[in-house]
Parts: sequence; structure tokens; C-alpha cells
Amino acid sequence: MEVYLDNSATTAPCSEAVEATQSTLRNCWGNPSSLYKRGLEAEKVLESSRKLVAKQLSCKSDEIYFTSGGTESNNLAIFGTVNALKRRGHRIVSTSIEHPSVEECLKYLEGLGFEVIRLTVDSEGRFSQKDLMAAVNSKTILVSLMLVNNEVGTIQPVEFARRAVNATGAPAYIHCDAVQAFGKTRLQVSDLDVDLISISSHKIHGPKGVGALYIRKGIRIEPRAFGGTQEKRIRPGTEPMPAIAGFGAAVKALPNPATEIHKISRLRDYLCYKLGLMDGITINSPKDSLPYITNISVNGINSEPMLNFLSDRGIYVSAGSACSKGKKSSVLKAMGLSDERISSALRISFSRMTTFEDIDVLLDGLSAVQSNIRPRR
Amino acid sequence: MEVYLDNSATTAPCSEAVEATQSTLRNCWGNPSSLYKRGLEAEKVLESSRKLVAKQLSCKSDEIYFTSGGTESNNLAIFGTVNALKRRGHRIVSTSIEHPSVEECLKYLEGLGFEVIRLTVDSEGRFSQKDLMAAVNSKTILVSLMLVNNEVGTIQPVEFARRAVNATGAPAYIHCDAVQAFGKTRLQVSDLDVDLISISSHKIHGPKGVGALYIRKGIRIEPRAFGGTQEKRIRPGTEPMPAIAGFGAAVKALPNPATEIHKISRLRDYLCYKLGLMDGITINSPKDSLPYITNISVNGINSEPMLNFLSDRGIYVSAGSACSKGKKSSVLKAMGLSDERISSALRISFSRMTTFEDIDVLLDGLSAVQSNIRPRR
Repeated sequence: MEVYLDNSATTAPCSEAVEATQSTLRNCWGNPSSLYKRGLEAEKVLESSRKLVAKQLSCKSDEIYFTSGGTESNNLAIFGTVNALKRRGHRIVSTSIEHPSVEECLKYLEGLGFEVIRLTVDSEGRFSQKDLMAAVNSKTILVSLMLVNNEVGTIQPVEFARRAVNATGAPAYIHCDAVQAFGKTRLQVSDLDVDLISISSHKIHGPKGVGALYIRKGIRIEPRAFGGTQEKRIRPGTEPMPAIAGFGAAVKALPNPATEIHKISRLRDYLCYKLGLMDGITINSPKDSLPYITNISVNGINSEPMLNFLSDRGIYVSAGSACSKGKKSSVLKAMGLSDERISSALRISFSRMTTFEDIDVLLDGLSAVQSNIRPRR
Repeated sequence: MEVYLDNSATTAPCSEAVEATQSTLRNCWGNPSSLYKRGLEAEKVLESSRKLVAKQLSCKSDEIYFTSGGTESNNLAIFGTVNALKRRGHRIVSTSIEHPSVEECLKYLEGLGFEVIRLTVDSEGRFSQKDLMAAVNSKTILVSLMLVNNEVGTIQPVEFARRAVNATGAPAYIHCDAVQAFGKTRLQVSDLDVDLISISSHKIHGPKGVGALYIRKGIRIEPRAFGGTQEKRIRPGTEPMPAIAGFGAAVKALPNPATEIHKISRLRDYLCYKLGLMDGITINSPKDSLPYITNISVNGINSEPMLNFLSDRGIYVSAGSACSKGKKSSVLKAMGLSDERISSALRISFSRMTTFEDIDVLLDGLSAVQSNIRPRR
């Protein structure tokens, strides 16, 4: 028996994605840049996936650029913007709770002399509109804000960014890391009103090895790699076709986020109600977080022995981002949580495949954790 | 009927690669960074593929870094070296016949003020040892040489690079783009004596979306992207696991290059003998090229109508690199070929799946080209 509740780290590929990947490998393995029939067939698969992703975001197909995943999309958005606009300013505005693939880029740019303003967040992990307005000045070239935090599920008011940029006349592009939001919220580029959006396939039951960057028509970023003419030279290299086909199929298989979220909310409400009946468990996620992610602390017990204990029972959760393997959560720290609570944090993350039974098994596991693991002194 | 003779653009995934990709998608879809059993299983697949690639190159597993493909490997090697060594010099030595994913990086670095020396090549597409010795000076930080040219198959004397670097005491790292050589020649890092080697999966019957960079133990390059701790921070981002598993399987399925090359040579010899009996066909590849690639010109007829004519008959060849879609070959130009011959060039490229019957169909197709396409005036 396996209860997989780490869907923010990765998800099980859906059958549609597996089949599309397989069929591309077996039947449609041409190089989309080749000019003969086999190449054109591959190009069709490529463009059909692009259309599916674009439809999901309500943007145009030619605004979607495939990458190798969320990390590359974030790197391309950030460096691509900074290299395109660096003559017009040196300020970058972001938050203190970004994913490592954003935060590490910002740190590197700071080393190069760029001024990085990281908005602080409140105890719910949310930055304030006021701080954002104050941080953006006329020399700001990039505003990079995640839509849904990967550790606690907080939904950020990203849509305020346009107002801040317009108010100052900043040349800035607005980038949104929407990796944890894509497919799970009604995510339309017109509502979000940003210039760049990062998304990833393997968080929505597609294959690993592919993601995309939405680049709003009319803006120009610098490529980060050089070579062939693929993806209009913004992202050269033979396209990861099997994964792209799987990504398209996974997007097509997505349920309507607006209705699906009710189902996920019921799962989350059930989990939180049951956790509330247990002693010594604190919920770190805000009440209005994206219901796919619930972050908790189990008082007095360290995350690692808990993860191991639960793993031995086939229950898979995590202590935080898979991309920061083992490190203490800087997100929870930014939210002002005590070291104690941070050391005992667990992230429980759902997908559309999660059931009430999964939650029951987890709850039993957590009770067993409390009776079997000796609290730290 | 399909006769696929464009194996330097991409190859049909072998059944072993298809199955490994499939099985990873279905059964082993965990995130290798996750600390529980499902994550550790994925990590095992990752490390097992790494071992297979390392074995093929006769290097250590921890010298192999997975990337999204050949283009990324080349970009990472070049920028990674230049950023690590830029304080020690500003000269880069390469050749005039590199793949776009090397040449375009060099052009960009030239724009930043680096001095790029491009070795000229002779009529066979080969640079001279003397020129190489003369080009490398004590301020050279990178020597980047392809092992097998992707358009004509010329094998370059890359092994001379170490002598040139040692003779001058240059701080340079030596990079070798071995994408067209890997799996097709006996490629051992000790023989080649370079610091960095780029290889790709989809040129050896593996899936698209994955490649690797060999980084010799003891040298340090700068990462090109920032984020998680994957690939020892040299290449962050969730690994393209299905493609990595397929890559490993494709490497494992490779025949011994030393014996396979005899089979391919017989195919090439047959092709060249038959072409020699036809009027108006010139062979552009040198006699001692890698037999997988044969570049020819069909006098008086432009490549594009030929490609279309052959494509209509299910015969797939190309005019050059798929990565420079449509552009006239700069490789053939560097070899000193006339514009006429360049405009009528075709690249025929074999794989271990190529048969004598394929060649017969191609030869018939070329005869038909000559009788049906009106030569240019």
C-alpha cells in the first residue's frame, strides 16, 4: 500500500500522458526541424501540445515556449529579462519565499551588483500590496512573484504588480512562477496581467523534463542558451518531444480547476478537522491557501524521523521543497515561525488522485508517529 | 515504405529505450530528490543510467552530469568554463566548422569582448595540428573542438589539444563536442584527454530531451542555471527521468563501436561505389570520415527540390544540420566548396538500423532526381 501525499514535489503521470509519450517515442520520433514528412509530423505534435498549453492559460500559442522544466523557465525569465533591460535600471523586486530556482538566481544577480528587494511576508506567508508599491521604483527592471507558495500553499496577490509597475513607469517585466498554481487554479494570463509565467509538466501528472515559459507578445527577453532556431531562438536545442507530447496530453486531461478545487477543498477541510482533534499539531498553512498544500508541525518531533517513520509505512510526505533537499525551510522562517515549529514541519500535498482513504491512512500514521517517536528534549 | 537516412539529425528510439522510458513513467515516477522509498527508487534509476553512460566513456560516474541535450551540454561547457576562468585570460580557440550550439555561443562571447580564434579547415574539413599549436597561447581559457563533424563526418584530431595547452601553460579547459561520435567510435576519455565532453541521447536511439556533459574530476566550471541541488548544483532542476532512463537503456543497447563500424563502413563503401558509377555526383566527405555520414552534391540541382522529391518517395535525407533549418552550410563553405556544390548538397547519415536495401532505394531515388528535376540554369 502506498499513500502518496507529496504531489507538490512531483505527481504520478496520468495514463493520457504515458500513452502520448509512448506513442511519440514509437511512431513520431522525427526531428521537428527536419523538412520532410517525418519531421513535419513531429512538428505537428509539438504545435498541438503548444496549443493545449496556450488554451489552458488563455493565451496565444506563439506566446508559449517549451523548456526543460520549471527551473529552466524561471532562470530564462529572470536572466532573460535582466539581460534585456539591464541598461534601464538595476532593481529587482521579489519576495522572501520564492522557490530556490528563483531565489538562487536573485542571489547570483546580487553578486553582480543588482539591487534585490525581497518583500517580507506576514505570518500567513503573504506579502502586502503596500510593500510592493513601495518597493517598485522607476529603475526596477524585474518583478518576480510566485503565485502559489510551494511549501505552504499561500496564494500571493500577484495581480497587484501591474499597478505598482504602471504607477512608477518602471521598465520592469513582471514574472510569475506559477508552477504550483498551473492546472490547479483558474489561471488566465489576462487576470494575472504579467509578462512571463513559468509552468511545469511533472506537477500536473505530465512527464518530467519539460515545462514552459509564457512570454507575452510584444516583450523581448534575451535567450539564455545559443544554438539552433528552435522555439524562435529563445530556447534552442532539439525539443524534448516525448515529454512535450506527454505534457500536452496531461494538460488536456486536466479537470476544470474551478470545479476540481471544491473536491480538493473537501479533502483539505477533512484533513484539517481531523488534525484539529489531535493534540500537538499546528497547521502552518493559512486557511485560504490553495487547498492542494497543507503544511503542519508536529510539536516536539523532528521532521526527518517522522518522514522515515511514515515512509516505512508507505506514506510519502515531505518536509518542504524537494529542490532544497534536507535544508531547513526559509519559507517558514520568513513567516516568523519558531525554530521548533520549523524543525517539525511536514508538507502534505494533494492531487486529483488523492482520496479520503489516503488521508485516513496519513492520520493513523501521524498518531503512530506521536506514540512511537520520542519527542526531542 | 520509409527509408530514413537522416540519423545525424535524430534516430528512431530502440525498443530498450522505449521500454525503459515507459517503465519509469508508469512505475518509477518519484522525484529523485525525495527522501522516501519512492524517491530513492527514482534515484536508483538515475544513478544506474549515469553508470551506463560513464562506462561507455570509460570515466567515473560522478564525472557525468545529465542535461536536457547536446545543445545545453555545449552551452554549459562553454559558458561554464569561460565564467570560471575569465580572470585568467580572454582567448578561446575553436574551429570554423562547429555545430551552431557551439558557434553561436562563441559569437555571443565575441560580442562580450572575448577573442575567438576559429581554426580554418582543409578541403576535407580538418584543422591542422600546426594551426592549433599556433592559436593556443598562455591567455587561452577554452579550446572547444568537435570530434566528428555533423555535416561531413570528418574526424578531428582533438587529441592534439592537450599538447597545445600544455606547451603554452594556458589555463584552458579543453571541451569536445562529441555528439556525433558518441556510441559510434571507441570514445574513451583517456584517449581523448579533454576536460569536458558533450553527448546526446537522441543521436544514439535514445529519447529526445536528455544529454550529458562529462566534467573531468578536478576541474570546476560555473553552473549556467541556479536552483536546486540536482547534479551537484551544476545543472539544477528536477531531472528528466523518463528520458534519462531511456538514455541509459539506449547506451546499454549500443553495439561495440569497434566492430559495428566495419558493418557501417561496408554500407558506406557500397554507397560510394554506386554513387561513383552515376554521373554528376560528387562526394564531399573525406574518404576517412566517420562512415555514418556521407555528404554529396548532385551537380546542378538545388538541395531543397531534391529533399522534397525524395521525401515524397519516403526517402529522408537532409541538406545539413537540422539545427540550422534551411540555411546554407557554413561547414562546406569553410571546406572551400563552390557555391554551386554547396547549393546541391545532401547529407546521408546511417545508423545501425540502416540496410543495403535502404541504400538501393536511395540510389534509385537519386537517379529519379536526376531525370525528373530540371537542373538550375
